[in-house]
Amino acid sequence: MPNRADFDAANASYVAGFSAGGKPMPPKRQALVIACMDARLHPEKALGVEIGDIHVVRNAGGRAVDALRSVTISQQLLGTTEIYILHHTDCGMLTFSTAQLQGIVKERLGADDGTVYHEFSDLEQSVRDDVALLRASPLVAPGTPITGGVYDVHTGKITWLE
Amino acid sequence: MPNRADFDAANASYVAGFSAGGKPMPPKRQALVIACMDARLHPEKALGVEIGDIHVVRNAGGRAVDALRSVTISQQLLGTTEIYILHHTDCGMLTFSTAQLQGIVKERLGADDGTVYHEFSDLEQSVRDDVALLRASPLVAPGTPITGGVYDVHTGKITWLE
Repeated sequence: MPNRADFDAANASYVAGFSAGGKPMPPKRQALVIACMDARLHPEKALGVEIGDIHVVRNAGGRAVDALRSVTISQQLLGTTEIYILHHTDCGMLTFSTAQLQGIVKERLGADDGTVYHEFSDLEQSVRDDVALLRASPLVAPGTPITGGVYDVHTGKITWLE
Repeated sequence: MPNRADFDAANASYVAGFSAGGKPMPPKRQALVIACMDARLHPEKALGVEIGDIHVVRNAGGRAVDALRSVTISQQLLGTTEIYILHHTDCGMLTFSTAQLQGIVKERLGADDGTVYHEFSDLEQSVRDDVALLRASPLVAPGTPITGGVYDVHTGKITWLE
């Protein structure tokens, strides 16, 4: 594990300065953010939230369809009442198709890969699609405020689309 | 959106101090972390990583089965070569069963919910199970170093299980 020694050293330093223990399990701000896994997006920093404040679900693209299990747990068991979708500029999801990636998996790993990768060709539309998916889902609490935005990896700025 | 004004004010401050633009899409440290969505876990802080360093996938419990789509994109398209699973103490996934949550969804939302929620009753075993799932998956690159650990929400300390 090439990064483990660095992670461990950093974590020891983090523990030495840690003062946020004892916070309750339900997020204090009652908010859930669904964001991309991209390395250039640190959602907590970009939103200015503290330990204990919000749930953060992340996956390739920040796609809502992949987050529904977590949304239900967050809303029904841990009391979150609003949802923010956060995609970003220069996203890898804009660069390939499911068929291409399935071909790469077949070639490199020898696996027959039926995964739908949920890539997209229009960044803002991908956010709108994910907001719409959540609003239409019977598993999301009716009336939940849901919005979505784009994080600019070059400036750090979040622009909400509605 | 009750938190949006606070998020916007914090983001404006973040943008004013932002100096990490222009980093490339592939994570510099070539690592992927799969962690829980819990509000008390900020993976980047706990691991001491910077903007651009690592992919972070998060969901309820930090379950690998929910992360496979993202793992493939991370490894095959963006060059990550090691995976860290990160669960944590006092996890909500220890507090309910799929049948109970399906009942709550039926009662509150009126929806017939077939979701498998991937809850667990043994925290360390849940980490081992997720490491094993990735090691056995035909969609994970053979030989990928994979480890897993537990983050202590009271101290900030990460303990790797192997």
